Amino acid sequence: MGGKSVRTGDFVVIEKNNNQWKGIIIQVGRNLITLKLKSGYNIGIRVDNKTKIEKTIGEKIEKHKPVKFELKFDKTKPLVSILSAGGTIASSIDYKTGAISSSYPAEQLVNTVPELVNFANIKTEKILEEMSENLIPKDWKKIANSVFKELKESEGVIITHGTDTLSYTSSMLSFMLRNLNKPVVVTFAQKSSDRGSSDASMNLICSTITATKNLAEVVVVGHGTVSDDYCLINRGTKVRKMHSSQRNTFRPINTYPIGKVYPSEKVEFLSKYRKKEEVKEEPYLDDKIEEKVAIIKVYPGINPEIVDFYVDKGYKGLILEGTGLGHVNTGEISMLPQIKRAIEQGVIVGMTTQTIYGRVNPYIYSPARVLSNLGVIYLEDLLPETAYTKLMWVLGHTQNKEEVKEMMLKDVAGEFNKRLQPNQFLY
Amino acid sequence: MGGKSVRTGDFVVIEKNNNQWKGIIIQVGRNLITLKLKSGYNIGIRVDNKTKIEKTIGEKIEKHKPVKFELKFDKTKPLVSILSAGGTIASSIDYKTGAISSSYPAEQLVNTVPELVNFANIKTEKILEEMSENLIPKDWKKIANSVFKELKESEGVIITHGTDTLSYTSSMLSFMLRNLNKPVVVTFAQKSSDRGSSDASMNLICSTITATKNLAEVVVVGHGTVSDDYCLINRGTKVRKMHSSQRNTFRPINTYPIGKVYPSEKVEFLSKYRKKEEVKEEPYLDDKIEEKVAIIKVYPGINPEIVDFYVDKGYKGLILEGTGLGHVNTGEISMLPQIKRAIEQGVIVGMTTQTIYGRVNPYIYSPARVLSNLGVIYLEDLLPETAYTKLMWVLGHTQNKEEVKEMMLKDVAGEFNKRLQPNQFLY
Repeated sequence: MGGKSVRTGDFVVIEKNNNQWKGIIIQVGRNLITLKLKSGYNIGIRVDNKTKIEKTIGEKIEKHKPVKFELKFDKTKPLVSILSAGGTIASSIDYKTGAISSSYPAEQLVNTVPELVNFANIKTEKILEEMSENLIPKDWKKIANSVFKELKESEGVIITHGTDTLSYTSSMLSFMLRNLNKPVVVTFAQKSSDRGSSDASMNLICSTITATKNLAEVVVVGHGTVSDDYCLINRGTKVRKMHSSQRNTFRPINTYPIGKVYPSEKVEFLSKYRKKEEVKEEPYLDDKIEEKVAIIKVYPGINPEIVDFYVDKGYKGLILEGTGLGHVNTGEISMLPQIKRAIEQGVIVGMTTQTIYGRVNPYIYSPARVLSNLGVIYLEDLLPETAYTKLMWVLGHTQNKEEVKEMMLKDVAGEFNKRLQPNQFLY
Repeated sequence: MGGKSVRTGDFVVIEKNNNQWKGIIIQVGRNLITLKLKSGYNIGIRVDNKTKIEKTIGEKIEKHKPVKFELKFDKTKPLVSILSAGGTIASSIDYKTGAISSSYPAEQLVNTVPELVNFANIKTEKILEEMSENLIPKDWKKIANSVFKELKESEGVIITHGTDTLSYTSSMLSFMLRNLNKPVVVTFAQKSSDRGSSDASMNLICSTITATKNLAEVVVVGHGTVSDDYCLINRGTKVRKMHSSQRNTFRPINTYPIGKVYPSEKVEFLSKYRKKEEVKEEPYLDDKIEEKVAIIKVYPGINPEIVDFYVDKGYKGLILEGTGLGHVNTGEISMLPQIKRAIEQGVIVGMTTQTIYGRVNPYIYSPARVLSNLGVIYLEDLLPETAYTKLMWVLGHTQNKEEVKEMMLKDVAGEFNKRLQPNQFLY
């Protein structure tokens, strides 16, 4: 490599494999240089011995000015709305040099990711400006309302969202948007600190492609691998953030992905999904929830009084993240008395598993049968996070014990998989 | 299939591919019949149209009597102790018809899994008889004490353990057994209800092989795949039960497995591990722990007062399972005041991530830096479960804030991995 001495802020010309890039260095990794090009794009270039890097001393790149161009409506293409709910993706479009504001009006967004106009007419709106770890249940309502409004006009809606609590949001949207007859795509950027190139652009491109397809579900779209080869389309109720920094963090749990989408526009569907024509009834928004619900992770040495804490605070529902097939301590420091009391006081108790993958089952070991007989609802292969949002949503509709149980065990938005396959594990 | 009408309890002769099995049916699946053979073995036989099944009406299989044979000590082979701490593996050897008692003396165990004598002289002892969801911290001490005592005589110790909380035990043993200079292997059986054949035998064989190797760590050994091809050897501090029923449930987290072990005796080492000769100092048992430690999983809508609950109950340590890179709500329903109060009252607060894979990092987003500045200890790539047992163990030694922080971040038993690799994700 012909320029070991380059550093952030240098203006350089890089030549490799008959390609040439000019730009300002915004990050120097071990074998990777991230360049901000004149177009405003950031590009990560792998450098090796054959890569020619020339520093252009004295020359300075002008601060990127977005090209002022007017977006013309293309009648042959659908309208897709991109709603910003905050998170890294909103800020990562601007990367480090700050050319685009976090509210990104359509023109600026399309200027940054011009590929989007190949697939759709783009409309944008900012609905929240918050890191996703700060979202609270009322924000889910706000997002659902904005999406529902937008769906009246657009063929598909994309929500850009922080990754931390994205799957809580995607599952809640899946419950709140009833008779959904268009695609609702939640997307994100991880932009892990150890990588030069951001994953925002490809995720937006894949999401836009997905938002124009014959798909009537809430899905999460983002990198399927650590490379930029394809994105996964995952069902909003069966997806989880499984890595704190890798871009392929959102994985299908207890299911296959709905499909893969390539930036080239190719989409491979891998499993069943709901199509628009299958939705016969009018879509409606159903955002009533009961917020007094909590998750309790069970572990050896847990203080059973934690159950009392919630009961005494007037909680209406508890989701246990049990061990294995849905177990809690029923031995020397048993949780049974506290769980029994909770149920007697009318609290709904649902059982999931902290193994994440697999199904709970009260019929293998007798202590679990005792819990089930007490009234603990064994929630099959539901993710704890999905069980939590679903219980909030169900309790927003009825607090009758039998009705809650029936609704909790009924498939509302593809949240159950009756036949788990061994290779869905760690997909 | 020539015997659709067979059922549990029938004595049958099954012929398939020139093989013949005689035995009593103990389970009838859709295409699988589980037979208890005269030898005492259970075998799962896939049945199809070509399988001939003949019921031998009137004939009854005698209740299996263990062959009374005396185990002779083979001087050319090492001594391995198998300690039973309960769980499915102890009962699955006996399966449903109860030929072997759950205490399984060495003779009976070897009669059931005769391969074991190929690798070692076997000694057995029952130390606990409990489903693992019922284990509490004092049980970890009991197991550690039994293992330590046993290591004086044996070349390696195997602990058979329920799966539910196995990795909590394996991590705690890793901390309690200091200067460990022999293999300590924790193993298990899943025996999922949808399968005829138990995974107990292969796991015991693999564990015995591992227990005779030049390995000076606490490891978890069990099925690597859903087939019976090999077991994984995983480090006790970096392993987790990731599926509620599949036999390949124990996966390495944020690391590669130490190795693969085949029932043929072949062992492939895949990553660094500690060898006996590297341990220069005398082994000792260090089982002092502080039990007043709790895990708090963070989620949107969590009641921040849960932190106060533990502080007011006199807890000394809290492990947060934060979102993403180690975040909590610092917005409208912030947890900051409660966390600040906890730290001011001398409670140690450690941060891990609920993504399971990946590392926490307080330096990417500013709210995490605020937490870190308050005194929250960001615990790198530690599993929440390992962070929990480690904090108990560390607080058993010192409650000085600076000393605790130093010990929590120092590698004691291979619990940290400084350089995560992308393909360690979902291994």
